[in-house]
Amino acid sequence: MGNGAIRMTTQELLERAKAAKGAMALADTDTKNRALLAMAAALESRGEDILAANALDLEGARGTVSEVMLDRLALSPARVAGMAEGVRAVAALPDPVGAVLSRVERPNGLVIEKTAVPMGVIAIIYESRPNVTSSAAALALKAGSACVLRGGKEAHRTAAAITAALKEGLSAAGLPEDALQLVEDTSRRSANELMAARGYVDLLIPRGGAGLIRACVDNAAVPVLETGTGICHIYVDRAAGLGMALDIVENAKCSRPSVCNAAETCLVHREIARAFLPRLRDRLTGREGRPVELRLDPKAAELIPGTPAGQDDFDTEFLDYILAVKVVDSLDEAVAHIAAHSTGHSEAIVTEDEGAARDFQRRVDSAAVYWNASTRFTDGGEFGLGCEMGISTQKLHARGPLGLAELCTARYLVRGTGQIR
Amino acid sequence: MGNGAIRMTTQELLERAKAAKGAMALADTDTKNRALLAMAAALESRGEDILAANALDLEGARGTVSEVMLDRLALSPARVAGMAEGVRAVAALPDPVGAVLSRVERPNGLVIEKTAVPMGVIAIIYESRPNVTSSAAALALKAGSACVLRGGKEAHRTAAAITAALKEGLSAAGLPEDALQLVEDTSRRSANELMAARGYVDLLIPRGGAGLIRACVDNAAVPVLETGTGICHIYVDRAAGLGMALDIVENAKCSRPSVCNAAETCLVHREIARAFLPRLRDRLTGREGRPVELRLDPKAAELIPGTPAGQDDFDTEFLDYILAVKVVDSLDEAVAHIAAHSTGHSEAIVTEDEGAARDFQRRVDSAAVYWNASTRFTDGGEFGLGCEMGISTQKLHARGPLGLAELCTARYLVRGTGQIR
Repeated sequence: MGNGAIRMTTQELLERAKAAKGAMALADTDTKNRALLAMAAALESRGEDILAANALDLEGARGTVSEVMLDRLALSPARVAGMAEGVRAVAALPDPVGAVLSRVERPNGLVIEKTAVPMGVIAIIYESRPNVTSSAAALALKAGSACVLRGGKEAHRTAAAITAALKEGLSAAGLPEDALQLVEDTSRRSANELMAARGYVDLLIPRGGAGLIRACVDNAAVPVLETGTGICHIYVDRAAGLGMALDIVENAKCSRPSVCNAAETCLVHREIARAFLPRLRDRLTGREGRPVELRLDPKAAELIPGTPAGQDDFDTEFLDYILAVKVVDSLDEAVAHIAAHSTGHSEAIVTEDEGAARDFQRRVDSAAVYWNASTRFTDGGEFGLGCEMGISTQKLHARGPLGLAELCTARYLVRGTGQIR
Repeated sequence: MGNGAIRMTTQELLERAKAAKGAMALADTDTKNRALLAMAAALESRGEDILAANALDLEGARGTVSEVMLDRLALSPARVAGMAEGVRAVAALPDPVGAVLSRVERPNGLVIEKTAVPMGVIAIIYESRPNVTSSAAALALKAGSACVLRGGKEAHRTAAAITAALKEGLSAAGLPEDALQLVEDTSRRSANELMAARGYVDLLIPRGGAGLIRACVDNAAVPVLETGTGICHIYVDRAAGLGMALDIVENAKCSRPSVCNAAETCLVHREIARAFLPRLRDRLTGREGRPVELRLDPKAAELIPGTPAGQDDFDTEFLDYILAVKVVDSLDEAVAHIAAHSTGHSEAIVTEDEGAARDFQRRVDSAAVYWNASTRFTDGGEFGLGCEMGISTQKLHARGPLGLAELCTARYLVRGTGQIR
C-alpha cells in the first residue's frame, strides 16, 4: 500500500462502514470489551510490523517536515505499549450505550425513556500522531459506532499497520472488521469526500490544525464536532493572591505549551499590575528550562521590559513559550477582551473575591471557566471522563472534553398499551 | 414598513442582537418571566393593530397563495388570545438556565459543575404562521438568548405588529428591546445572510418546508438544528393485536395528517396481512370525514383493492389522507425498509411480542420509536416538556422535541484553590 495504488475508494469503504454499523450498535458490552482487549493484544503482537512501517514513514518524511512533526510521528516499543494500554483503558470504561438519560411516565400511561444510542458511523480526520489511530478507533468502537479514520500522508504506513492490528482484534471478538476503516487516499480529496458524505457519516470529528477544523466547519454537509484551538486567558484580578496567580500562570503557560488548554494571554487588573508584573516577569523569564517571551501591551510595557505586542499577538495560539500580557482597567474589560479574542476553550480568573469570580464565570462564554485553577485541567482524564476524543469549542451537542457519552446520540423509546391521540 | 424601504439591514440587526445577548444571558428568572407576561399583555392590548396588519397581509396574499396557506396566515381575536396564552405558558415553565447538569469533585479538590447556559443568539427562519413569531420568540428569550426572527414575506406585516408588541413587553421588564429582532428583508438573501452569520448566530433553527431545511443544513456556516420532515412508519407485527393496530394506524394517519408526526406508511407482516388489510381498508376508506387513499405495494394489492403504489410513494411525506401500505416478510424487512425510507422522525411497532418490540426499538434509528402507541405523540407537550420549538431529526445536540433545555448549551464551571497540573 503506502505509495502503491489505492485498492478501495473512499466511497467503497464508507459503504462498508455503513453496512457494519448495525452490528456495532447491537454489540453488547462484553463483546465490545473483548474486541478492545484483543485489539490491544494485537498491537503488541504486531509491534514489529508497526515499528517497521513507522521506520518507512519516518524515512519518507525526513527533510520534508519539521523536527517536531518527526517526533510526533516516531514510534518506539514503549509508545506502542502505551497505545495498547490506552486501548485497554477504554475497555475498562463504562459502556455509554443503553444508558437511560431520562424517564417519564405520562398521565396517559406512556413510558418515555430517553436512551443513549450509538451515532452510527464516526469519521475522524487527523494528522500525523500514530496514537490517534488507536485511541480514536477505540473510543468510537466502544461508543458502538463504526469508525472511519483519515490520517495524514506522512503517517499512512504506520496507520495502516496499526489498523491491521485493530481489525484483527475486532475479528477475534466476532465483530465485523469493516467497522473500522482507514481511508487509503490521503489527499485533500478524501477529506472533502468525508465532509460531503451525507447518509454515510453521522459525525465528523476533525482533530488537527486550525485550518483543517475551519475547513470542516465551513464546508461539511455532515454533522461536525469542532475540536479546539485554544487561545486561553488567565485574568489576574485585583483581589488575586499573587503567589497563586504566579503558579497558575506559569503552569498554564509552561507545563505543556503545545496543547490547546495552555494559556496564551494573561490579563492583569491595573490595581495589581505594578506589584504583579515584575514578579511574573522574574518567574517566567528566569525559570529553568525554556524562558517565556512576554509580548506586552503599552500599559504593561510601562511596568516591565519585554517585546511590544504586535497586532496579532492577542489573537494567536502561540503553542510556544510566548505569553501576551495586557493590563485591564476592570473585570468588565477583561470579560470584553475575552469575548473579542478567545476561541471559547478555557479561561481562568485568579481572585480571592467570590463575587468577582461568580461574575466572571457567569459572563465568560467558554467551554470551561476556572476560578483559581489552571486552564490545563480541561481534559477528559482530568474531568473524570477517563478518556477524550478532543475538546469541543462549539456550543452544539458537546462542549469541552469529548468522552464516550458525547460520542453517542439519544433516542426516545416509548412504551404504550395502545394509546392514541 | 411592509412594502416600504428596509430601515435596518440584516447585518445591523444581527449586531444589535449580539450586543443584547449579554443582558439576556444575565437576566434572572423573575425578570424574564415578567417580560413574558408583559409580552402576553401587549399582544392583547395591541390586538387591533395586529389584526389590522394581518388583514393587509391577507389582502396582499389572496390569489397568490393556496387556501391552506391563507388559513395558516389568518388571525382572529381568538387566535391572538391563544398566542398570548402560549407566551404565558412559557413564563410558567421552569427556567433552564443555571441548572447544574452534572457535578464532580475530583481527588485534587477541583469542583467541576457542568451548567446549562444560554446559546447567545438564536435565529429562526420560518414561513407564514403568525403564532410562530410569538412562540419562537418566547422560547428563545426564556432560554436566555437573544432572538432573530425571519418570517415569510406574506406574513411580514403581521409579524412586525406582533414583534412590536413583544418588544414592548421586553422593555417593560427592563430588558433590551434589541434582544428581539425581526428581519425586515424577507427575500432569499436574508436567509442566506443568517446562514452565513458566523460570530453572530449561535444557533439557527429552520422551521418550515423540506426545501428550506435542506438549504440550511447544506449551506449554513452557523450551527443548525434540523427540524423535521416526518416519513413515519407503523409496523404491524405478526403478533399485533388487530384492534389496537387499527386504532393506532387510523390515529397516526388521520388525527392530523398535515403534521410531521403523522404516519405515511404502514408495513404489515405477511402472516397477519390477510386478516389485517381488509379491516384496515374498511376502517380507513369507510370512515366518516375524509376517507384515506391507500397506495399498495404488489403484495398488499393482492389482498385488497387500492391504488398501486408508485415509485416515490414510500419516500413521500404526503401530509394528506394518503397511506402507503407494504407487506413485509419479517421484522427484519420492516427494519430494513425503515432504514432506507424513514426521515428518522418517529416509527412504531404494534405487537404483543415483547421480544419483537425490544428488537425493533434497538434497531430502528429514529428520534422516537414507539411500541403500541401512535407516532402522533412525538411532541413537546406530549413528552412533558411543556412546549416545543420543533422536532429535531438530527443526531447531534438534540433529537426529538426541542424544549427549553435543548435551546441551551452548557459550560463547565470549575472551582479550585490554586490547583496546577
